[in-house]
Amino acid sequence: MKKLLALSAAFAMSGIANAMEPLPASPPIPTDNPMTVAKIELGKQLYFDPRLSIDGTISCNSCHNVMSGGDDSRAVSVGVGGAKGGRSAPTVWNSAFLSTQFWDGRAASLEDQAKGPILNPIEMGMPSAAEAVSRIKAIPGYVLSFKAVFGEKDAVTYNNIAKAIATYERTLITINSPFDRYMRGDKSALSAAAISGMKTVQDIGCTACHSGPNFSGPTMEVGQGFFQKFPTYDSEYDKKYQFTADLGRYNVTKDESDKNVWRVSTWRNIALTAPYFHNGSVATLDEAVRVMAKTQLNKEITDQQVDDIVAFLNSLSGEFPVQTMPRLPGYNNATIVKAD
Amino acid sequence: MKKLLALSAAFAMSGIANAMEPLPASPPIPTDNPMTVAKIELGKQLYFDPRLSIDGTISCNSCHNVMSGGDDSRAVSVGVGGAKGGRSAPTVWNSAFLSTQFWDGRAASLEDQAKGPILNPIEMGMPSAAEAVSRIKAIPGYVLSFKAVFGEKDAVTYNNIAKAIATYERTLITINSPFDRYMRGDKSALSAAAISGMKTVQDIGCTACHSGPNFSGPTMEVGQGFFQKFPTYDSEYDKKYQFTADLGRYNVTKDESDKNVWRVSTWRNIALTAPYFHNGSVATLDEAVRVMAKTQLNKEITDQQVDDIVAFLNSLSGEFPVQTMPRLPGYNNATIVKAD
Repeated sequence: MKKLLALSAAFAMSGIANAMEPLPASPPIPTDNPMTVAKIELGKQLYFDPRLSIDGTISCNSCHNVMSGGDDSRAVSVGVGGAKGGRSAPTVWNSAFLSTQFWDGRAASLEDQAKGPILNPIEMGMPSAAEAVSRIKAIPGYVLSFKAVFGEKDAVTYNNIAKAIATYERTLITINSPFDRYMRGDKSALSAAAISGMKTVQDIGCTACHSGPNFSGPTMEVGQGFFQKFPTYDSEYDKKYQFTADLGRYNVTKDESDKNVWRVSTWRNIALTAPYFHNGSVATLDEAVRVMAKTQLNKEITDQQVDDIVAFLNSLSGEFPVQTMPRLPGYNNATIVKAD
Repeated sequence: MKKLLALSAAFAMSGIANAMEPLPASPPIPTDNPMTVAKIELGKQLYFDPRLSIDGTISCNSCHNVMSGGDDSRAVSVGVGGAKGGRSAPTVWNSAFLSTQFWDGRAASLEDQAKGPILNPIEMGMPSAAEAVSRIKAIPGYVLSFKAVFGEKDAVTYNNIAKAIATYERTLITINSPFDRYMRGDKSALSAAAISGMKTVQDIGCTACHSGPNFSGPTMEVGQGFFQKFPTYDSEYDKKYQFTADLGRYNVTKDESDKNVWRVSTWRNIALTAPYFHNGSVATLDEAVRVMAKTQLNKEITDQQVDDIVAFLNSLSGEFPVQTMPRLPGYNNATIVKAD
């Protein structure tokens, strides 16, 4: 990680632009969790099933809404019992291209990530993995599907729940953004402002970190993670938006050099995922751009530069695939959630 | 209403079974709100859009989940800020066949109903219809769709929001339940227990009220409503489940004779909508059947009768149509909800 920080700092200082790439149609697939149609469908059911929360009110989709930007338009999310989270929900769209999950990279893979919120007392609030499994096991349709998908006798396990959800998430890819079409040769896909913004983010150094197919850093091994210190430079913004109150990756590693270090966020669909930053403290994309130029590159940029960069970032909203709604398997004649 | 009460009481006493009917594929459509493909799609977007709630956490689908039984598996629902409602969410499936909406019939039509929860402080919590309209108007994709659907210059109105949602809800019909297939001639569609249960509900008088295509009373004009006193007969259940604490329709009409009077609920998909009754106090369908026999017909029924009736009620779970997920129109570069 330290090597990467040094590397990206060098890029930033030299102004070398990292390559920009169109988004591939498929993300990396782990060998121990291959994609199948039935597993995707099962994962979609679980992703949308609020019965994975203690009181039946919260599903994965509640905070990572795939009908919109893959998040919840909120600074921080609301979990069971009206509890508020400490960080802003990151988008699930294209998260399969990230080499580490959560803002602080505390999960290596989508499989690892999926196991977190179900058991988090302020998110879905299930008291234990065993309880989550026993609830899913009580729903006959799920038992049949898990058996068909995983081919094991006792197929409903917490690992398999996570594997199915991760498999569904790997289908959540937004190809063919205006930027992608431009990169593939359609020179009319970007406005003059967006083209100007694209040059600006390279010239001033944003793409030292926001590179690669997901604009979240270079393609890396699962679990490796691409991190940066934020804020790097002191500014009035620290106080205004309380950026340093949360120590970020330090909470995971307890390594001093990880204080206020965060995973580099994707730019894809960023127009749709306000408010911004780990604490959701910045309401608009233009302000987020100003903040980043100052805190990461120590640059004051002009209003024109901000407008152009925002135009470019808007060109990164992709095509959202048409999906059928899952049908959640029934639990007959009684309720299975904590219903009051 | 009083005439209907007397009528159904007469049926109950004489044991005359009202006709049972398969569910039609289409419900009544109001002449001033015709169905169009574009209006259905717009209504689906609105139905799933949590931005219709003040803080972006609650959509119509949060409490009336069309991916499952059309409700939320809870005694009472959870609205914005963790607020709990006073009554159990009724299913949206086949609600287009009901001649009045809400447990107490305080809305005549689905259009009227849709306007309630958006403004209810413990449900979606928007401070006014004007604020809901102004939020939708700020989303460019909605403005285009409303104009295309309603053909008016200033098409985003609270009335039109309700019309679109109601139009979508009229597509939520579950035909071809085992019972429906049985009625259309497939004698293998019902088990012996279900057939026995079907006879029992006619013999003991349940179908005096639970008649018609939706088992919620005869087909009536919109707004007329088919109501019953619940409980009709005193029993130990009143105290156990606090049935009489809520005065029901009396709260709407202030008419003494409406105390503890409620809309007759549908039986369709009832296996999927536990817990039961207006306060969601009864956890299981077999107990709900015992309660109804005692409180409405003053009958103690045997365990065998309960099992058979439950088997019959399970035969009323229909086919849920495959739906595509709506794509919620984007609001770029900022958030539009109250985000903290």
